[in-house]
Amino acid sequence: MQHNQTTLLVTGQDLQQIIFNIGLDSLMDQLIEETYLALVNYDPSDCVMNRRSGYNYTEPAEGLVEWMPIRQISKDQVVIKVVGYHPRNPEQYQVPTIISTISKYDTRTGHLSALIDGVLPTSLRTGAAGAIASKLFGYSQSQSLGLIGCGAQAVTQLHGISRVFDLKQIYYYDIDELTSQSFVARAAMLDLDCEFVPMSINEIVRESDIISTATSIGIGEGPLFAELPTKEWLHINAIGSDFPGKFELPFSFLENSYVCPDWIDQAVIEGECQNLESHQIGESLSHCLKEANTFEHLKNSRTVFDSTGIALQDLVSSKIILEHAERLNIGQRVQIESASLDEKNPYAFIKRLKKS
Amino acid sequence: MQHNQTTLLVTGQDLQQIIFNIGLDSLMDQLIEETYLALVNYDPSDCVMNRRSGYNYTEPAEGLVEWMPIRQISKDQVVIKVVGYHPRNPEQYQVPTIISTISKYDTRTGHLSALIDGVLPTSLRTGAAGAIASKLFGYSQSQSLGLIGCGAQAVTQLHGISRVFDLKQIYYYDIDELTSQSFVARAAMLDLDCEFVPMSINEIVRESDIISTATSIGIGEGPLFAELPTKEWLHINAIGSDFPGKFELPFSFLENSYVCPDWIDQAVIEGECQNLESHQIGESLSHCLKEANTFEHLKNSRTVFDSTGIALQDLVSSKIILEHAERLNIGQRVQIESASLDEKNPYAFIKRLKKS
Repeated sequence: MQHNQTTLLVTGQDLQQIIFNIGLDSLMDQLIEETYLALVNYDPSDCVMNRRSGYNYTEPAEGLVEWMPIRQISKDQVVIKVVGYHPRNPEQYQVPTIISTISKYDTRTGHLSALIDGVLPTSLRTGAAGAIASKLFGYSQSQSLGLIGCGAQAVTQLHGISRVFDLKQIYYYDIDELTSQSFVARAAMLDLDCEFVPMSINEIVRESDIISTATSIGIGEGPLFAELPTKEWLHINAIGSDFPGKFELPFSFLENSYVCPDWIDQAVIEGECQNLESHQIGESLSHCLKEANTFEHLKNSRTVFDSTGIALQDLVSSKIILEHAERLNIGQRVQIESASLDEKNPYAFIKRLKKS
Repeated sequence: MQHNQTTLLVTGQDLQQIIFNIGLDSLMDQLIEETYLALVNYDPSDCVMNRRSGYNYTEPAEGLVEWMPIRQISKDQVVIKVVGYHPRNPEQYQVPTIISTISKYDTRTGHLSALIDGVLPTSLRTGAAGAIASKLFGYSQSQSLGLIGCGAQAVTQLHGISRVFDLKQIYYYDIDELTSQSFVARAAMLDLDCEFVPMSINEIVRESDIISTATSIGIGEGPLFAELPTKEWLHINAIGSDFPGKFELPFSFLENSYVCPDWIDQAVIEGECQNLESHQIGESLSHCLKEANTFEHLKNSRTVFDSTGIALQDLVSSKIILEHAERLNIGQRVQIESASLDEKNPYAFIKRLKKS
């Protein structure tokens, strides 16, 4: 059997081509649907996730480089997202805070079968997760979404949640005046029929049905607000906590809410769950989706989705992207790994040269 | 400051171009020299290695996919080699047992700055390590090299060791008759003035000054030979042990030799050191090189280099390759990560479309 040895490169530009072909809403809907199915059918004996690990540092800039591996046994694949988080990127280099790529390996041979931009998929899949959690835990008549932190992730939170709720008011705040001012223009391309209202954090916490927090608050500088009166059904997607010592929500709020982590092992290290005892932490999102009836009553009480980001989401987004890329013939095939003129001779190419 | 967002791809074919430019011997010499310097100057507070981890399995084929990360603080970089080991590859797919790629990340931003074929570099750097260990521990007048296992790694073991010893006899054996028969032709391109003698494993063990074992012996099927009389100064590079349960050398041989692992933490899990108590394990290669005078006497006694492969070697080979690629203008620059028309708007490209 001859083995295809090329790697399919799907760049950021290729992803744009895919979106121009299928539409942004349709891609988000597909991500929400397939991520939901992956979570509700999650079988840890088929999809084996390793807790992400990596290097984090304060020099040359506060940041980290992490790898998030997952093996899907039934599909003969390992998918590894390598992700950098460097909050000073926008200001210092005019590049996104989160930069990443997703690699797919064939477990029959070890071959790198695809390499995909991870920047746009990470935003999209985080928006999709926010939508899934909001749908599960949010008040079913929710009309107002509060966004605390108006960077790249706020755009996809708004997008994802707008696909599952008929939003009427968007309340938004960013500590950076320019980021706050530019938000409405950035959100405009979603063509939502919503009122956009700039507010203080405290007003957002008081007024919203659903909130997504996605800030770059510094390590040890949280929470974003003190305990405040809220709607009794307020659901918060806590997106920004993804670093040891970084958290966004006050302990008193967490303590009096049902807190659902995406993955407890990871959330207790870098999510909001860092601040909680185990008895204060609810079931994982996958578990709650599997037993949705049991958790139905939570739609009317305070809930938190502690989103740290899991490899299963990247597995789903890479699958969707690669299907579209292959169907639409988008992307470039490159022979990266040394080809096997003679698989037992790393120098076989020299023989070839000498003969010619 | 504008940040270069492209990734330099250096494929197997690009590596061939580099070798055609600089010469294979010169590349091996540079690898030996720079790997030696990296080991002798190794400072774990500058080069932070994570023990490799990964997935290993028996279905769809016996194999593993592992990641080997290293952060070099002084160079603002993280280098991760992802490596697959699938011993049935040659027979089943006509591709090498070891398939891999090396990725380099900039710790200022998290950007993937380079992606390099890892197949050829892995063979080369393993040959270089064999040369360094043989030079340190081998009898200084060594003339005979025994090769047990004549696959891809045997070629670079021979190449590396031939750069530091004036070899006269090459004794070789492979369990597969065809692999054994083709070995001399494969080695021919090294233009060595040596006699090649096919032998049994036992003859090789008796007759050689230096041996490199690089077999695909199965898990739990070792060792390759029983205790035998050997030259009193025999040095063995044990290359093939790189999997839990896989080992090549008999316990009685290890027990009566000085055993130097490349990295003890890893060697006790997947190297020959799996079979040893801690008091039977010597210092690491880096330590022995730093204190070479102390270990001088070992040149005249039995020694084993337990080579599992460490990320520091891949760091060195990626550095050398990228320097040559940039100097010779070899390789392709690809913008893989989503570009930042607006680093706070993952959908900025859609705005652009609407305007055009």
